[in-house]
Amino acid sequence: MERKEKMMREALREAKKAEAKEEIPIGCVIVMDGKVYARAHNLRQSKRVATAHAEILAIEKACRKRKDWRLNGAEMYVTLEPCAMCAGAIANARIDKVYFGAYEPKGGGVCSRFSILDDSGLNHVAEWEGGVLEEECSSLLKNFFRTRRQRADRESE
Amino acid sequence: MERKEKMMREALREAKKAEAKEEIPIGCVIVMDGKVYARAHNLRQSKRVATAHAEILAIEKACRKRKDWRLNGAEMYVTLEPCAMCAGAIANARIDKVYFGAYEPKGGGVCSRFSILDDSGLNHVAEWEGGVLEEECSSLLKNFFRTRRQRADRESE
Repeated sequence: MERKEKMMREALREAKKAEAKEEIPIGCVIVMDGKVYARAHNLRQSKRVATAHAEILAIEKACRKRKDWRLNGAEMYVTLEPCAMCAGAIANARIDKVYFGAYEPKGGGVCSRFSILDDSGLNHVAEWEGGVLEEECSSLLKNFFRTRRQRADRESE
Repeated sequence: MERKEKMMREALREAKKAEAKEEIPIGCVIVMDGKVYARAHNLRQSKRVATAHAEILAIEKACRKRKDWRLNGAEMYVTLEPCAMCAGAIANARIDKVYFGAYEPKGGGVCSRFSILDDSGLNHVAEWEGGVLEEECSSLLKNFFRTRRQRADRESE
Protein backbone atom coordinates (compact mmCIF):
# COMPACT_ATOMS: atom_id res chain seq x y z
CA MET A 1 0.00 0.00 0.00
CA GLU A 2 1.31 3.41 -0.92
CA ARG A 3 2.21 5.72 1.90
CA LYS A 4 -0.47 8.25 0.98
CA GLU A 5 -3.15 5.56 1.20
CA LYS A 6 -1.80 4.32 4.51
CA MET A 7 -1.94 7.84 5.91
CA MET A 8 -5.42 8.46 4.50
CA ARG A 9 -6.52 5.32 6.39
CA GLU A 10 -5.30 7.04 9.57
CA ALA A 11 -7.43 10.07 8.64
CA LEU A 12 -10.41 7.76 7.99
CA ARG A 13 -9.90 6.24 11.45
CA GLU A 14 -10.21 9.76 12.88
CA ALA A 15 -13.33 10.40 10.77
CA LYS A 16 -14.94 7.31 12.30
CA LYS A 17 -14.26 8.69 15.78
CA ALA A 18 -16.24 11.77 14.76
CA GLU A 19 -19.06 9.58 13.46
CA ALA A 20 -19.23 7.71 16.77
CA LYS A 21 -19.89 11.10 18.44
CA GLU A 22 -22.59 11.94 15.88
CA GLU A 23 -20.32 14.56 14.35
CA ILE A 24 -20.00 14.90 10.55
CA PRO A 25 -17.32 12.23 9.88
CA ILE A 26 -14.23 14.13 8.81
CA GLY A 27 -10.76 13.18 10.02
CA CYS A 28 -7.28 14.55 9.55
CA VAL A 29 -3.67 13.65 10.29
CA ILE A 30 -0.54 15.74 9.99
CA VAL A 31 2.59 13.83 8.99
CA MET A 32 6.15 14.89 9.72
CA ASP A 33 9.22 12.86 8.66
CA GLY A 34 6.96 10.06 7.43
CA LYS A 35 5.20 9.65 10.79
CA VAL A 36 1.84 10.78 12.16
CA TYR A 37 2.61 13.92 14.17
CA ALA A 38 -0.91 15.11 15.06
CA ARG A 39 -4.40 13.72 14.54
CA ALA A 40 -7.89 15.15 14.99
CA HIS A 41 -11.50 14.82 13.95
CA ASN A 42 -14.37 17.20 13.50
CA LEU A 43 -15.82 18.34 16.86
CA ARG A 44 -17.99 21.27 15.86
CA GLN A 45 -21.14 20.02 17.62
CA SER A 46 -19.44 18.68 20.78
CA LYS A 47 -17.32 21.78 21.26
CA ARG A 48 -20.01 24.14 19.96
CA VAL A 49 -17.29 26.18 18.28
CA ALA A 50 -17.41 27.14 14.58
CA THR A 51 -13.67 26.65 14.10
CA ALA A 52 -13.51 23.09 15.50
CA HIS A 53 -12.97 21.41 12.11
CA ALA A 54 -10.59 18.43 11.98
CA GLU A 55 -7.92 20.39 10.09
CA ILE A 56 -7.87 23.35 12.50
CA LEU A 57 -7.67 21.08 15.53
CA ALA A 58 -4.85 19.06 13.94
CA ILE A 59 -2.90 22.21 12.99
CA GLU A 60 -3.25 23.58 16.52
CA LYS A 61 -2.04 20.30 18.04
CA ALA A 62 0.94 20.17 15.67
CA CYS A 63 1.89 23.82 16.37
CA ARG A 64 1.71 23.24 20.14
CA LYS A 65 3.83 20.11 19.82
CA ARG A 66 6.42 21.84 17.63
CA LYS A 67 6.21 25.11 19.61
CA ASP A 68 6.11 26.96 16.29
CA TRP A 69 3.33 28.43 14.18
CA ARG A 70 5.23 27.26 11.08
CA LEU A 71 4.77 23.64 10.04
CA ASN A 72 7.14 23.63 7.06
CA GLY A 73 7.98 20.06 6.09
CA ALA A 74 4.55 18.79 7.13
CA GLU A 75 1.97 16.97 5.03
CA MET A 76 -1.75 16.88 5.80
CA TYR A 77 -4.14 14.02 5.01
CA VAL A 78 -7.84 14.86 5.33
CA THR A 79 -10.90 12.87 4.27
CA LEU A 80 -12.76 15.84 2.73
CA GLU A 81 -11.52 18.81 0.70
CA PRO A 82 -10.83 21.61 3.23
CA CYS A 83 -13.24 24.58 3.36
CA ALA A 84 -11.97 28.16 2.88
CA MET A 85 -11.19 28.53 6.60
CA CYS A 86 -9.15 25.33 6.72
CA ALA A 87 -7.38 25.96 3.41
CA GLY A 88 -6.43 29.40 4.72
CA ALA A 89 -5.12 27.83 7.93
CA ILE A 90 -3.04 25.34 5.92
CA ALA A 91 -1.48 28.24 4.01
CA ASN A 92 -0.96 30.25 7.22
CA ALA A 93 0.76 27.26 8.84
CA ARG A 94 2.97 26.77 5.75
CA ILE A 95 2.16 23.10 5.35
CA ASP A 96 4.01 21.61 2.34
CA LYS A 97 1.36 19.37 0.84
CA VAL A 98 -2.27 18.39 1.39
CA TYR A 99 -3.89 15.11 0.32
CA PHE A 100 -7.65 14.97 0.54
CA GLY A 101 -10.21 12.22 -0.12
CA ALA A 102 -13.63 13.44 -1.27
CA TYR A 103 -14.17 16.65 -3.21
CA GLU A 104 -16.51 19.31 -1.76
CA PRO A 105 -18.15 20.92 -4.81
CA LYS A 106 -20.18 23.46 -2.77
CA GLY A 107 -17.58 25.04 -0.53
CA GLY A 108 -14.17 23.44 -1.14
CA GLY A 109 -11.31 25.86 -0.61
CA VAL A 110 -8.61 23.94 -2.49
CA CYS A 111 -10.01 23.62 -6.02
CA SER A 112 -13.81 23.30 -6.06
CA ARG A 113 -14.90 26.76 -4.92
CA PHE A 114 -11.70 28.67 -4.12
CA SER A 115 -8.07 27.91 -4.96
CA ILE A 116 -6.54 29.14 -1.73
CA LEU A 117 -3.53 26.81 -1.62
CA ASP A 118 -2.33 27.73 -5.11
CA ASP A 119 -1.56 31.26 -3.98
CA SER A 120 -3.09 32.80 -0.90
CA GLY A 121 -0.97 35.94 -1.24
CA LEU A 122 1.17 34.75 1.66
CA ASN A 123 4.28 33.87 -0.33
CA HIS A 124 3.44 30.27 0.45
CA VAL A 125 2.09 27.82 -2.07
CA ALA A 126 1.04 24.41 -0.77
CA GLU A 127 0.94 21.45 -3.12
CA TRP A 128 -2.20 19.33 -3.08
CA GLU A 129 -3.75 16.17 -4.46
CA GLY A 130 -7.44 15.26 -4.26
CA GLY A 131 -9.24 11.93 -4.62
CA VAL A 132 -7.06 9.75 -2.36
CA LEU A 133 -9.32 6.84 -1.24
CA GLU A 134 -12.11 9.04 -2.55
CA GLU A 135 -14.75 6.30 -2.62
CA GLU A 136 -14.29 5.38 1.04
CA CYS A 137 -14.08 8.95 2.27
CA SER A 138 -17.15 9.91 0.29
CA SER A 139 -19.22 6.85 1.32
CA LEU A 140 -18.59 7.55 4.97
CA LEU A 141 -20.11 11.03 4.57
CA LYS A 142 -23.01 9.90 2.36
CA ASN A 143 -23.98 7.12 4.77
CA PHE A 144 -23.82 9.51 7.70
CA PHE A 145 -26.20 11.97 6.08
CA ARG A 146 -28.51 9.20 4.82
CA THR A 147 -28.82 7.72 8.33
CA ARG A 148 -29.47 11.15 9.79
CA ARG A 149 -32.22 11.88 7.24
CA GLN A 150 -33.85 8.49 7.85
CA ARG A 151 -33.84 9.10 11.59
CA ALA A 152 -35.33 12.57 11.11
CA ASP A 153 -38.02 11.08 8.86
CA ARG A 154 -38.89 8.43 11.44
CA GLU A 155 -39.06 11.00 14.20
CA SER A 156 -41.40 13.21 12.20
CA GLU A 157 -43.82 10.35 11.40
CA MET B 1 -19.53 59.36 16.79
CA GLU B 2 -21.17 56.68 14.71
CA ARG B 3 -21.54 53.26 16.28
CA LYS B 4 -19.31 51.58 13.75
CA GLU B 5 -16.49 54.01 14.56
CA LYS B 6 -17.01 53.56 18.27
CA MET B 7 -16.77 49.79 17.86
CA MET B 8 -13.72 50.06 15.57
CA ARG B 9 -12.06 52.05 18.37
CA GLU B 10 -12.60 49.04 20.60
CA ALA B 11 -10.92 46.87 17.96
CA LEU B 12 -8.04 49.39 17.80
CA ARG B 13 -7.67 49.15 21.56
CA GLU B 14 -7.24 45.39 21.15
CA ALA B 15 -4.72 45.94 18.33
CA LYS B 16 -2.65 48.09 20.69
CA LYS B 17 -2.59 45.26 23.22
CA ALA B 18 -1.07 43.06 20.50
CA GLU B 19 1.50 45.77 19.73
CA ALA B 20 2.51 45.94 23.40
CA LYS B 21 3.34 42.23 23.17
CA GLU B 22 5.35 42.78 19.98
CA GLU B 23 2.67 41.00 17.97
CA ILE B 24 1.49 42.39 14.62
CA PRO B 25 -1.12 44.92 15.84
CA ILE B 26 -4.48 43.54 14.75
CA GLY B 27 -7.54 43.67 17.00
CA CYS B 28 -11.10 42.47 16.78
CA VAL B 29 -14.39 42.74 18.63
CA ILE B 30 -17.63 40.84 18.12
CA VAL B 31 -20.79 42.81 18.84
CA MET B 32 -24.15 41.36 19.79
CA ASP B 33 -27.26 43.48 20.47
CA GLY B 34 -25.18 46.64 20.15
CA LYS B 35 -22.69 45.60 22.86
CA VAL B 36 -19.17 44.15 22.78
CA TYR B 37 -19.66 40.40 23.27
CA ALA B 38 -16.09 39.14 22.71
CA ARG B 39 -12.73 40.80 22.11
CA ALA B 40 -9.32 39.50 21.07
CA HIS B 41 -6.03 40.47 19.51
CA ASN B 42 -3.46 38.70 17.39
CA LEU B 43 -1.37 36.26 19.44
CA ARG B 44 0.39 34.22 16.78
CA GLN B 45 3.89 34.71 18.17
CA SER B 46 3.02 34.38 21.86
CA LYS B 47 0.90 31.28 21.37
CA ARG B 48 3.10 29.91 18.56
CA VAL B 49 -0.04 28.71 16.81
CA ALA B 50 -0.81 29.52 13.15
CA THR B 51 -4.53 29.97 13.82
CA ALA B 52 -4.16 32.52 16.66
CA HIS B 53 -5.37 35.50 14.61
CA ALA B 54 -7.55 38.09 16.38
CA GLU B 55 -10.69 37.06 14.46
CA ILE B 56 -10.35 33.32 15.21
CA LEU B 57 -9.74 33.96 18.91
CA ALA B 58 -12.74 36.33 19.08
CA ILE B 59 -15.02 33.85 17.28
CA GLU B 60 -13.95 31.05 19.63
CA LYS B 61 -14.61 33.22 22.70
CA ALA B 62 -18.03 34.25 21.37
CA CYS B 63 -19.00 30.63 20.54
CA ARG B 64 -17.96 29.45 24.02
CA LYS B 65 -19.92 32.28 25.63
CA ARG B 66 -23.03 31.59 23.54
CA LYS B 67 -22.56 27.81 23.73
CA ASP B 68 -23.29 27.66 20.00
CA TRP B 69 -21.14 27.45 16.88
CA ARG B 70 -23.62 29.77 15.17
CA LEU B 71 -23.21 33.48 15.80
CA ASN B 72 -26.17 34.72 13.76
CA GLY B 73 -27.03 38.27 14.73
CA ALA B 74 -23.38 39.14 15.43
CA GLU B 75 -21.25 41.85 13.86
CA MET B 76 -17.45 41.77 13.74
CA TYR B 77 -15.15 44.81 13.80
CA VAL B 78 -11.54 44.12 12.86
CA THR B 79 -8.69 46.54 12.16
CA LEU B 80 -7.38 44.69 9.06
CA GLU B 81 -9.19 42.89 6.25
CA PRO B 82 -9.46 39.23 7.32
CA CYS B 83 -7.26 36.63 5.55
CA ALA B 84 -8.79 33.60 3.81
CA MET B 85 -8.74 31.54 7.03
CA CYS B 86 -10.51 34.23 9.05
CA ALA B 87 -13.01 35.08 6.30
CA GLY B 88 -13.83 31.37 6.09
CA ALA B 89 -14.29 31.24 9.87
CA ILE B 90 -16.64 34.25 9.72
CA ALA B 91 -18.74 32.45 7.10
CA ASN B 92 -18.65 29.18 9.09
CA ALA B 93 -19.78 31.02 12.23
CA ARG B 94 -22.61 32.73 10.28
CA ILE B 95 -21.70 36.22 11.41
CA ASP B 96 -24.09 38.80 9.90
CA LYS B 97 -21.72 41.63 9.03
CA VAL B 98 -18.02 42.45 9.12
CA TYR B 99 -16.51 45.94 9.31
CA PHE B 100 -12.79 46.20 8.73
CA GLY B 101 -10.30 49.08 8.81
CA ALA B 102 -7.30 48.69 6.49
CA TYR B 103 -7.40 46.73 3.25
CA GLU B 104 -4.93 43.83 2.78
CA PRO B 105 -4.09 43.86 -0.94
CA LYS B 106 -1.81 40.80 -0.78
CA GLY B 107 -3.92 38.23 1.03
CA GLY B 108 -7.29 39.76 1.98
CA GLY B 109 -10.08 37.19 1.99
CA VAL B 110 -13.03 39.61 1.85
CA CYS B 111 -12.45 41.54 -1.36
CA SER B 112 -8.73 42.07 -2.11
CA ARG B 113 -7.61 38.52 -2.96
CA PHE B 114 -10.64 36.29 -2.40
CA SER B 115 -14.33 37.15 -1.96
CA ILE B 116 -15.16 34.51 0.61
CA LEU B 117 -17.93 36.38 2.44
CA ASP B 118 -19.94 37.07 -0.71
CA ASP B 119 -20.61 33.38 -1.16
CA SER B 120 -18.53 30.70 0.48
CA GLY B 121 -20.85 27.93 -0.76
CA LEU B 122 -22.22 27.58 2.76
CA ASN B 123 -25.63 29.09 2.14
CA HIS B 124 -24.45 31.99 4.25
CA VAL B 125 -23.57 35.39 2.87
CA ALA B 126 -22.04 37.90 5.29
CA GLU B 127 -22.31 41.60 4.58
CA TRP B 128 -19.14 43.62 4.86
CA GLU B 129 -17.78 47.17 4.75
CA GLY B 130 -14.09 48.08 4.49
CA GLY B 131 -12.24 51.29 5.27
CA VAL B 132 -13.74 52.09 8.71
CA LEU B 133 -11.14 54.32 10.47
CA GLU B 134 -8.84 53.08 7.72
CA GLU B 135 -6.15 55.72 8.30
CA GLU B 136 -5.71 54.88 11.99
CA CYS B 137 -5.83 51.11 11.46
CA SER B 138 -3.35 51.32 8.63
CA SER B 139 -0.92 53.69 10.45
CA LEU B 140 -0.76 51.38 13.43
CA LEU B 141 0.44 48.55 11.17
CA LYS B 142 2.83 50.72 9.13
CA ASN B 143 4.47 52.15 12.25
CA PHE B 144 4.86 48.71 13.74
CA PHE B 145 6.68 47.37 10.68
CA ARG B 146 8.79 50.55 10.34
CA THR B 147 9.95 50.29 13.97
CA ARG B 148 10.72 46.61 13.52
CA ARG B 149 12.79 47.26 10.37
CA GLN B 150 14.70 50.10 12.07
CA ARG B 151 15.48 47.87 15.02
CA ALA B 152 16.67 45.08 12.72
CA ASP B 153 18.86 47.59 10.83
CA ARG B 154 20.41 48.86 14.08
CA GLU B 155 21.06 45.32 15.25
CA SER B 156 22.80 44.40 11.99
CA GLU B 157 25.10 47.42 12.08
